[in-house]
Amino acid sequence: MISKILVPTDGSRAAQKAGRYAVDLAKRLKASVVALSVIDKRSYMGQTIRASDTARHVIEPIEDYLREAAERYAEEIKKLCETNDIRSKMVITTGHPVEEIMKEAERSKVSLIIMGSHGRSALAAMVLGSVTYGVIHKDTKIPVMVVKR
Amino acid sequence: MISKILVPTDGSRAAQKAGRYAVDLAKRLKASVVALSVIDKRSYMGQTIRASDTARHVIEPIEDYLREAAERYAEEIKKLCETNDIRSKMVITTGHPVEEIMKEAERSKVSLIIMGSHGRSALAAMVLGSVTYGVIHKDTKIPVMVVKR
Repeated sequence: MISKILVPTDGSRAAQKAGRYAVDLAKRLKASVVALSVIDKRSYMGQTIRASDTARHVIEPIEDYLREAAERYAEEIKKLCETNDIRSKMVITTGHPVEEIMKEAERSKVSLIIMGSHGRSALAAMVLGSVTYGVIHKDTKIPVMVVKR
Repeated sequence: MISKILVPTDGSRAAQKAGRYAVDLAKRLKASVVALSVIDKRSYMGQTIRASDTARHVIEPIEDYLREAAERYAEEIKKLCETNDIRSKMVITTGHPVEEIMKEAERSKVSLIIMGSHGRSALAAMVLGSVTYGVIHKDTKIPVMVVKR
């Protein structure tokens, strides 16, 4: 039934908790894990500045920084999988987190998505972050497990 | 980690699917199942009629009917547990579904809630029914798995 679990992570506390939860469940179910980290385009592409007007020497270091962070977050989960003898892969993509999570879920044919209730950008007062909210509300057949922070 | 799973059911297609999913997972994890069916007070207590103004011979048959249906829904899951050799209990309560689900989750100290994306009263066009929406958005530590219809 649950043979492949997708864990989107942005390195937040809830995402890390979801990662540990997913690894634990994968171990017990002998499932594999896909650790996904999305470089959120919205965080460095200003709405008011056209790409052609932005100096590449400004954009590129930000992209590099975000990519390194994204890789670090996914690697954390991948390492946890390795320690626990669980097959896993790491995927880094760029775009809107909700869309990228859904795309990867389809691409990797996962049977379950496990994610934290709140990402890095979520307001503390919200009971559900916008990315988790977006994924939960997507009209897809894949079950979603929300791990609360 | 996952030792007791709460499955709220209103007999809807998504709830039945969530029930099968929960039983399958419980079997693989050697967890137990709590099948909860809530008699939704809102479905027979009109907002405009005081209880004292409503003849008991009208209210009681409706209550009986709803109770029988609630028991039937929870029994479906309980039977599935028995077939699969899974420890289970059946709980029938009366009240607001979201509140009752959260109360039972605390009372039974469950480690996971598995529920369908849409209940009986959900509009087909909605991507998430109001009860599931309510449970997901509750500020509790218990993870929630949403099984899509």
